[in-house]
Amino acid sequence: MVAPANAPADLAEEVVELAKRRGYFFQSSEAYGGVAGFYTYGPQGAGLKQNVEDAWRERYAIAEGHQEVDAPTIMPEPVFEASGHLDTFDDMLVSCAECAESHRADHLIEDAPGSTVEDAEALPIPEVEELLREYEITCPNCGEPLAGEPVEDFNLMFGTNIGPGDASPGYLRPETAQGIFVEFPRLKQYARGQLPFGVTQIGRAYRNEISPRKSIVRTREFTQAELEHFIDPELDEPDVEAVADVEVTLYSADAQQAEDGEPIETTIGSAVEDEVVESDWIAYYLGVTKRWYDRVGVDMDRFRFRQHLPGELAHYSSDCWDAEGYAAGDWIEMAGFSYRSDYDLRKHAEYADDDFTVFKQYDEPRTTKRATVDPDMSELGPTFGGAAADIAEALEAIAATDPDRFDAAAAAPAGTVEVTVGEGDDADTYDVPFEHTGYAVEEVTEAGEHLRPHVVEPSFGVDRLVYTLIEHAYREDEVDGEERAYLTLDPEVAPTTVGVFPLMDRDGMGERARDLADDLREIGLSVEYDDSGAIGRRYRRQDEVGTPFCVTVDHDTLEDGTVTIRERDSTAQVRVPADDLPRICRDLRDGVREFSALAEGQPAE
Amino acid sequence: MVAPANAPADLAEEVVELAKRRGYFFQSSEAYGGVAGFYTYGPQGAGLKQNVEDAWRERYAIAEGHQEVDAPTIMPEPVFEASGHLDTFDDMLVSCAECAESHRADHLIEDAPGSTVEDAEALPIPEVEELLREYEITCPNCGEPLAGEPVEDFNLMFGTNIGPGDASPGYLRPETAQGIFVEFPRLKQYARGQLPFGVTQIGRAYRNEISPRKSIVRTREFTQAELEHFIDPELDEPDVEAVADVEVTLYSADAQQAEDGEPIETTIGSAVEDEVVESDWIAYYLGVTKRWYDRVGVDMDRFRFRQHLPGELAHYSSDCWDAEGYAAGDWIEMAGFSYRSDYDLRKHAEYADDDFTVFKQYDEPRTTKRATVDPDMSELGPTFGGAAADIAEALEAIAATDPDRFDAAAAAPAGTVEVTVGEGDDADTYDVPFEHTGYAVEEVTEAGEHLRPHVVEPSFGVDRLVYTLIEHAYREDEVDGEERAYLTLDPEVAPTTVGVFPLMDRDGMGERARDLADDLREIGLSVEYDDSGAIGRRYRRQDEVGTPFCVTVDHDTLEDGTVTIRERDSTAQVRVPADDLPRICRDLRDGVREFSALAEGQPAE
Repeated sequence: MVAPANAPADLAEEVVELAKRRGYFFQSSEAYGGVAGFYTYGPQGAGLKQNVEDAWRERYAIAEGHQEVDAPTIMPEPVFEASGHLDTFDDMLVSCAECAESHRADHLIEDAPGSTVEDAEALPIPEVEELLREYEITCPNCGEPLAGEPVEDFNLMFGTNIGPGDASPGYLRPETAQGIFVEFPRLKQYARGQLPFGVTQIGRAYRNEISPRKSIVRTREFTQAELEHFIDPELDEPDVEAVADVEVTLYSADAQQAEDGEPIETTIGSAVEDEVVESDWIAYYLGVTKRWYDRVGVDMDRFRFRQHLPGELAHYSSDCWDAEGYAAGDWIEMAGFSYRSDYDLRKHAEYADDDFTVFKQYDEPRTTKRATVDPDMSELGPTFGGAAADIAEALEAIAATDPDRFDAAAAAPAGTVEVTVGEGDDADTYDVPFEHTGYAVEEVTEAGEHLRPHVVEPSFGVDRLVYTLIEHAYREDEVDGEERAYLTLDPEVAPTTVGVFPLMDRDGMGERARDLADDLREIGLSVEYDDSGAIGRRYRRQDEVGTPFCVTVDHDTLEDGTVTIRERDSTAQVRVPADDLPRICRDLRDGVREFSALAEGQPAE
Repeated sequence: MVAPANAPADLAEEVVELAKRRGYFFQSSEAYGGVAGFYTYGPQGAGLKQNVEDAWRERYAIAEGHQEVDAPTIMPEPVFEASGHLDTFDDMLVSCAECAESHRADHLIEDAPGSTVEDAEALPIPEVEELLREYEITCPNCGEPLAGEPVEDFNLMFGTNIGPGDASPGYLRPETAQGIFVEFPRLKQYARGQLPFGVTQIGRAYRNEISPRKSIVRTREFTQAELEHFIDPELDEPDVEAVADVEVTLYSADAQQAEDGEPIETTIGSAVEDEVVESDWIAYYLGVTKRWYDRVGVDMDRFRFRQHLPGELAHYSSDCWDAEGYAAGDWIEMAGFSYRSDYDLRKHAEYADDDFTVFKQYDEPRTTKRATVDPDMSELGPTFGGAAADIAEALEAIAATDPDRFDAAAAAPAGTVEVTVGEGDDADTYDVPFEHTGYAVEEVTEAGEHLRPHVVEPSFGVDRLVYTLIEHAYREDEVDGEERAYLTLDPEVAPTTVGVFPLMDRDGMGERARDLADDLREIGLSVEYDDSGAIGRRYRRQDEVGTPFCVTVDHDTLEDGTVTIRERDSTAQVRVPADDLPRICRDLRDGVREFSALAEGQPAE
């Protein structure tokens, strides 16, 4: 876990404190003592999260031409039998015999002094129990030794019962993806049966973490934005060209496992050419995502893509990369990109009663020959007795796999087909006369075939992105001899776009400012009106919130109709006509106009 | 349940069928047999729902200047002990002894042939059991009699466990409101402690219904949009003037209970004046809501506000009205408007460890006199023995409630204060000499007082509104001799704004159309590109989806750069320059331009 060269020290404390003070996020139900792993977004946090979701929707659904759906968070048990979550979605639980506190055994081992274990989750349970003993690990809560305590698999799904009684168990979905996979039979109709097509969903997902950590980074209830892109693996290709020149930092599995392995700086185009990224589809989405994260405000000096190590890979996934941001003193997974093959649709086809394929029409109908048999049981019965039925079955198998043997038998005089029934020592061999096999070759014309699509999955954690955006935007400096903390949030995602203040709430300045605020709200800007306290304190408040622009109505406004507009990061101010303000503010937010250009040729305040 | 005069017959079947076919909504997990009460929004439904939520947010959060928050859906048990949901959020459950199917006993009674019971939910359980017998009600599933089966209270919250084991029970919130109330101590800080302020939330809520009904009208998982408006009941007043002229249909409790009672047509202003609506705050939100529903597309001929009957009212609510839409063959509750007094904050203040008041500063500090006692126990003890402590307590009570008696004792020579200890037959009376009471009067100066705000709550069901919008928009007519079903959705909320078709995908028409579609998406319009099948069929498809405008690229486009644009309801078409299309389509969606104006002076197709 090497920090990037220019990363600031762990800012988690400052971020969490500011988040609580300014209404970004805070632990839920604190009046009742709080519950670990549940956070509430205050007005600023809800705004930032909403803006991030809108930006994601615009990029991954609308711009890519995909469809968005909205499925329930409670799903019935059979769904998770099929997906494998019921059996394998576990963490390693160890409970303290003394104080009854529960812990993640793998985390305790990784964090133990002198521990060299990096991925304890991948170890078998007896080995984990042994390591608890070896490292003399004690309960972080009460200090009692945990050696000898049993380690158990604890399923991370929240369970509940649907309807009265317990006849119909359900679970809160651990990922939004299953709400897409199970509906594939219907969703393909909306795509008119044509591959490729993508389906997105933004919504809640739940994991009953044993030890929630780091505020909104690892919670029990969180928001995901997922895209399931259904493709024909043989025909469909992504537009890699469109992102070929995107520069990325890639930390491959090889580099992670090498002695002095380091992330490399490259482009998507080169990464595909050099086969650092195996799947073109994954490479395409890495390129799209690097650009998008950059745009919404992730600091690219604290960002990389990391390939999963062979031990981390799910068995169905051939290539998987995480987008990682350095925040809260660690690299945290912000998104995962996985080539899931046909795993999910195949599993649901096995367990459910529906068609999880698409019909792929051939350019023109194809005619193929198919060999069939129709054994004459009135001959086989008397001749072979009790073995007749097995012999008939064996003939069918040969027709399907090795029809040439029938042709050979037909060509020979009184030809026979040799059939073996049973296995090993119990195997018996029979010669069946060709004329009793009912062998024939049919011509079959098919318009197409049933194809099970492969799935490419970019999966984003919205809360982790929100956290990272705040921490990467966090700055401290000094203004007018006073210390200031502020957030350099991008105007596109900042929850409040404009603060509007009257210098004082008198002589009509308050009314004028309130009217201006209404004008700005009218065109869809997020505005905070504030007339309380000294003007410097009001600026400081908006700086902490990350509001990019503040407008002040003063005595001059009443005389010449101009207002000052102040930029957050530089604290520079210019006067502009109040009438132009809505247009100016919208342009500034949309990035169509730069504040510095606004200032040119204007007298600074 | 009287249908409005001009309401069409029950359209539920047509709506549900269209919803499934065109991607509005469908029952979830149908590949696994489905689970009652859970629905998935397909691409069109998710789009419509999103647009409705955005429109709600714009009206009830941004335009009103309220703050939006985003809280977890799982909350710990103590929250629901305080809110009362754990004890009283029940439905009446009766199970069939034969087939084990569960039913709502109150619904069975209301729906029984010959039943005159209208609100069985309000009856005590023994009476409900008696009515099951009296009406000879049988199991709707298997036909066995239900007489004699026990009726139980079934709690409608979905329960789960937070963390390993069952030490920390949690529930899926039955309403988003609790996520606001419990955070009041922090939310008031973000409002800088100033009343009034409002907090909104749009999110999932859950009710484990015994018998989910009518597709997305009564589900087990649904989306609410709620506003909790915290007010000072003595000082704050709503801007009723702003909505005084809004015309509304009001069905008061009196009218519902009268022999020939009918809803009345009036205005908000008159309703306040005539005291039909008791609370000005409720009246204000009824006015705002009527306008908003009208704007997003609720048919005002199938809409009314209905007052709760005395039996329906929650005990804390002095006045409560529902917004009702006529849909699926019945009046359905789309929103509730409740004056909740200080009930919620008071309950949480009782159960939780935090301050659920705001500090209300007086205009200037107020000085009041306060009487205190400081009984001399060294005198009282020897004189009154075991009764001394009770006597001291009684003196304190008198000082707080009736200090004049001390003044009288002080004025009399060797005056005493008569004190009674104990009650009824055990009461004893003592005369306490004034000089041993330690009586004094202090002057106390206070800057303000701690005030518990009252709450005005407009609470919206998003799914029910989505359903109503679809049903109210549903039309059938004939176009070119063919039957057509279409949705007259308002362009502001329609999930797809523009359909873009090439007449055929050849001669460059396909490319031109795809480029046009991209141009329209670029400016934020929701666009569907379609080149499959005959052009008439493509129109029909978009008509069913409710897409207000379709653009076709034909041979003329390649020559003169014009395209046809067709309006859904009238099927009228006009040619416009393709270059102007983005601006035109945006104006049409925003209602800035009318299609008919576009057509004027243009040759019709």
